[in-house]
Amino acid sequence: MKDIDDSPIVRNGNSIILAYDHGTEHGPVDFEPNPASADPEHVFEVARHDAVTCIAVQKGIAEGYHQEYSDDVNLLVKLNGNSNLRDPEDYYSPKQCTVKYAVEELDADAIGYTMYAGSDYEDQMWKEFREVQEEARKYDVPVVMWAYPRGHGIEGNSEYGGDKDSDVVSYAARLGLELGADMVKCKYPGTEDGWKQIEENVGKMKTVMSGGSKRSDRDFLEDVSTTINAGGNGLAVGRNIFQRENPEGLLDKLEKVVFNAKDVDEVM
Amino acid sequence: MKDIDDSPIVRNGNSIILAYDHGTEHGPVDFEPNPASADPEHVFEVARHDAVTCIAVQKGIAEGYHQEYSDDVNLLVKLNGNSNLRDPEDYYSPKQCTVKYAVEELDADAIGYTMYAGSDYEDQMWKEFREVQEEARKYDVPVVMWAYPRGHGIEGNSEYGGDKDSDVVSYAARLGLELGADMVKCKYPGTEDGWKQIEENVGKMKTVMSGGSKRSDRDFLEDVSTTINAGGNGLAVGRNIFQRENPEGLLDKLEKVVFNAKDVDEVM
Amino acid sequence: MKDIDDSPIVRNGNSIILAYDHGTEHGPVDFEPNPASADPEHVFEVARHDAVTCIAVQKGIAEGYHQEYSDDVNLLVKLNGNSNLRDPEDYYSPKQCTVKYAVEELDADAIGYTMYAGSDYEDQMWKEFREVQEEARKYDVPVVMWAYPRGHGIEGNSEYGGDKDSDVVSYAARLGLELGADMVKCKYPGTEDGWKQIEENVGKMKTVMSGGSKRSDRDFLEDVSTTINAGGNGLAVGRNIFQRENPEGLLDKLEKVVFNAKDVDEVM
Amino acid sequence: MKDIDDSPIVRNGNSIILAYDHGTEHGPVDFEPNPASADPEHVFEVARHDAVTCIAVQKGIAEGYHQEYSDDVNLLVKLNGNSNLRDPEDYYSPKQCTVKYAVEELDADAIGYTMYAGSDYEDQMWKEFREVQEEARKYDVPVVMWAYPRGHGIEGNSEYGGDKDSDVVSYAARLGLELGADMVKCKYPGTEDGWKQIEENVGKMKTVMSGGSKRSDRDFLEDVSTTINAGGNGLAVGRNIFQRENPEGLLDKLEKVVFNAKDVDEVM
Amino acid sequence: MKDIDDSPIVRNGNSIILAYDHGTEHGPVDFEPNPASADPEHVFEVARHDAVTCIAVQKGIAEGYHQEYSDDVNLLVKLNGNSNLRDPEDYYSPKQCTVKYAVEELDADAIGYTMYAGSDYEDQMWKEFREVQEEARKYDVPVVMWAYPRGHGIEGNSEYGGDKDSDVVSYAARLGLELGADMVKCKYPGTEDGWKQIEENVGKMKTVMSGGSKRSDRDFLEDVSTTINAGGNGLAVGRNIFQRENPEGLLDKLEKVVFNAKDVDEVM
Repeated sequence: MKDIDDSPIVRNGNSIILAYDHGTEHGPVDFEPNPASADPEHVFEVARHDAVTCIAVQKGIAEGYHQEYSDDVNLLVKLNGNSNLRDPEDYYSPKQCTVKYAVEELDADAIGYTMYAGSDYEDQMWKEFREVQEEARKYDVPVVMWAYPRGHGIEGNSEYGGDKDSDVVSYAARLGLELGADMVKCKYPGTEDGWKQIEENVGKMKTVMSGGSKRSDRDFLEDVSTTINAGGNGLAVGRNIFQRENPEGLLDKLEKVVFNAKDVDEVM
Repeated sequence: MKDIDDSPIVRNGNSIILAYDHGTEHGPVDFEPNPASADPEHVFEVARHDAVTCIAVQKGIAEGYHQEYSDDVNLLVKLNGNSNLRDPEDYYSPKQCTVKYAVEELDADAIGYTMYAGSDYEDQMWKEFREVQEEARKYDVPVVMWAYPRGHGIEGNSEYGGDKDSDVVSYAARLGLELGADMVKCKYPGTEDGWKQIEENVGKMKTVMSGGSKRSDRDFLEDVSTTINAGGNGLAVGRNIFQRENPEGLLDKLEKVVFNAKDVDEVM
Repeated sequence: MKDIDDSPIVRNGNSIILAYDHGTEHGPVDFEPNPASADPEHVFEVARHDAVTCIAVQKGIAEGYHQEYSDDVNLLVKLNGNSNLRDPEDYYSPKQCTVKYAVEELDADAIGYTMYAGSDYEDQMWKEFREVQEEARKYDVPVVMWAYPRGHGIEGNSEYGGDKDSDVVSYAARLGLELGADMVKCKYPGTEDGWKQIEENVGKMKTVMSGGSKRSDRDFLEDVSTTINAGGNGLAVGRNIFQRENPEGLLDKLEKVVFNAKDVDEVM
Repeated sequence: MKDIDDSPIVRNGNSIILAYDHGTEHGPVDFEPNPASADPEHVFEVARHDAVTCIAVQKGIAEGYHQEYSDDVNLLVKLNGNSNLRDPEDYYSPKQCTVKYAVEELDADAIGYTMYAGSDYEDQMWKEFREVQEEARKYDVPVVMWAYPRGHGIEGNSEYGGDKDSDVVSYAARLGLELGADMVKCKYPGTEDGWKQIEENVGKMKTVMSGGSKRSDRDFLEDVSTTINAGGNGLAVGRNIFQRENPEGLLDKLEKVVFNAKDVDEVM
Repeated sequence: MKDIDDSPIVRNGNSIILAYDHGTEHGPVDFEPNPASADPEHVFEVARHDAVTCIAVQKGIAEGYHQEYSDDVNLLVKLNGNSNLRDPEDYYSPKQCTVKYAVEELDADAIGYTMYAGSDYEDQMWKEFREVQEEARKYDVPVVMWAYPRGHGIEGNSEYGGDKDSDVVSYAARLGLELGADMVKCKYPGTEDGWKQIEENVGKMKTVMSGGSKRSDRDFLEDVSTTINAGGNGLAVGRNIFQRENPEGLLDKLEKVVFNAKDVDEVM
């Protein structure tokens, strides 16, 4: 863990990451609510909004589309990911881009890596994360871990209440700190106390909330605001933005909540 | 994904790839309808036709036969492939040529890689594709992905209608874009709407139709024409060409449909 | 095995290692008895005590917190570890930091590696230890092995009385010597004779007792004193220190027992 | 595939390879019919016969015995092989010598590699062959593939008549061409038509017959002659030579059949 | 296989290797008959005896103890080994030292590697041996193979009479020759004819008898003498030496039998 306050993906200590790796993770089905969102150009246009500190995309999208937005949109390249077409034994996310390629060829400002703690493949992912993390240090780019506890170790343990149980989320977040991430993206555990539990266990490391599936503006903003109040550093949001035809209004509100410490009532 | 309009394998934005990797994939049985086709020289002669923007072959065929056709035939080296002799647990295609060897020793103009999304080996193939894709960038040759969704993840999912279901084909094609391919070869999903669905999900990336097994000229040309009309960029064709004794007539017609936007009725 | 008496982690031939890798191994639950201990700064402050010859932490904690304590606290980077979220077939601890990174980037004074002899993964861990050990020699940092016999080979063998059986502990310690460790951390086998058996089988290699879970000062100090009397070289202690709100008193006592050969009665 | 007519292992376009890897593949039992054959010196003496274009041995035999015969005996180093002591799941042949070592240290004139197409390990062997083939190109030595279709894919397929079925042998031979071999060693499929089928599917690549177990001179020579007449390029022979006490007579006859196009009746 | 008569581990063509890897292979239990033997210094002192051409130890013992004996005791570093704590599927011995480390850092005069032919892991061990063997050539140190046929391939084969069957031992020894060892250590097959069978199948390669568990002087010397008479080159002996309190007498006798061709009756 290093201090990344000077990084382009952080503003006033916080971040709003526009996540757009759904074409990899879920496929075209995620673009159906707003067909325009299938076109990366459309989403890069959205990412020009001041609220967005960076866009998070896979290698191929970065290659094909980022260059013309490089003045306006900071780039986080997601180094691993997995498709929903396959039916694996347990959760695993293979690497499809090196840090070297992300930084040298794609001009990435940060890199992202999904870690499925609790999976049968957790150990293998730790090894791959080690490589990624040490290479990222060489290039001096922040390391954001999608800290997603999942798999047989979680499902098969009756003490755990699933992958949003704050005990589980906190442990996964702590692993981010221990393994050398600079920021972790966590599932929202449902309450302010839940997020506080995360914060108590991650020291100085930054945390962002996972946006999740689309819901009402107010519900969504409440979760974000709670996260900020509990000490979180913002959010990574995808479907709640690009599945709307006019996400600018929501981005305006998010900007106020995340960077200007406004309450939800103030921005609605 | 990069713009490959200036590549030798593209003409007026489109491509006709003469695929001749059947000796690897299916074995001598594919040469039986036209025994002359077992001889690579025969097929390289066919590839001299103006319609063909490149021939796609495995390493050994490229080594033994391409040099004397290098002025007339552009070369795509297929980097992976698999034999039909073995009986694997699920679909997988091992790499039998590096990009370095293909470009430095075989003078490849492009490289090809089969991706079996949906297979138990999908993750492993992503990792191998990553290496191939990044090495191809170093050598500045286009990357064509044979985007073939197959295996347990497809077969075992009742929501999917098999490997020509346009939802499945579109997802596999999108993965080509996300992972950094420049062109994907897709199974024809049966309808113009099906191909449009592909196009809507691949942004600016090029797509070519997989020729499939031999059928009548008209049936075949209708599929190609539909693909072009739906926004596709041509086709990769093998058996429909080399299993005919005189494929020139069909190649003349394909040239008009793919590069000159002619309708099937105009060329028959 | 090399002579490490001149190493910063050794004082008068002995060591007290403050182990703080519990966020990786057990998760936040270990911080609950003393919530302040979740904050690495708190534990680094404790490590300033003269009794402590080094702190043992994972990569991310070293990165984020050691620098400002570098004048006062010697650093042992634990190179492997495993989370308690997963449910593996048998004991295994993947590597999440290279020796190179630990020494060049984190200024480690020593490195640590857990070896689960008896596990189905023992062979794989030997291979990984080989790499670690030889790289550590290149950087001239001591190699401390967490010599923890565990897994199917121990559980399934009726001749063994579990992982604290002195026959088992002695064999695991001997493996440390044979494989090239400079110091082994062993479970306390319960008696002075048990520890003597260890000492008889490790030649000149140093040994430290594993602190184990929290217990009374006297009980804990008795075990440490017995270890020293039997020829041991100190201890690695975590929960018995950081789970107390005021561990200074116990550290004062430990210092006298380990470095000044005092009896427990003298220091209580 | 490259033209190897200028290679030392080829004479007038054809080859007689004296195979002596039986100590690896079958063990001492193959030397029992002629105990002198257990001594590599004995077989190197035989290899001095003009008929023999090269001897094929494993690394250790080449190291210990070839040097003093280097003026008279060309050397093919067999890079992989397997013992008959083990009982594997399916056919696989691990590599025990690199091309670099074979050429730089052992002065190999050619290298050999066994490919078990049809085995569960076929894919893995393709990957290893890729490395071997590309390294052989760097050193400019011919690549001879022992093209042996075997394993679950062949046994479990009712359409195939075993590993001497000419459909199967032809496919395996074709794979040699596709993967970049310069010569394939094939099982004799039993008839001239069978060998012709092979030839029709391998383009310009050379083929040699596998000698098989010992039989009468006439039976053996008939098979060789049929192979030559069908377009084959000679044979690799072991037991039919070294299991005889005086193999010179048979070598004289083989020389006439393979290099001088004599019929069996002419040489008997 | 290379001529190693000039090597420090050979004297008058023969060798007596004092094996002391039992702390790895069997653990402290092997030191119980003579507790002093647990201390490497004790065994290095024994190795000073003129009869001993080298001591064979694991990396850690070499590191900690050889330097002060380097004038008197030649060093063979055993590169692989395995503990008896684990319960593996079949025999396998992982590598815990590189040739580079053994020679450059430990000043090894020779290296040793255990090969379990017949095991499910035989193929993997061949690959690892390949690396070891080629690296040893680079450093010009002799390669001694512990040629131990074991595992499912031997146990499950009714034609074999276990791992001391001379057919099995001969095959395993032959593999040493084929794979490039310079000397093989074989189990004593029980008779002079048995050892002769080994010799007939290993060409010029050297062979030494495995000392086995402790027995009477006469019984032990008879086996050694028979081995020498059958053409063997000595022995590797551990427990028969270090489990005795005063092994000098036996070493005197062994010296006469192995290097001076004395009969057992002459030396008793």
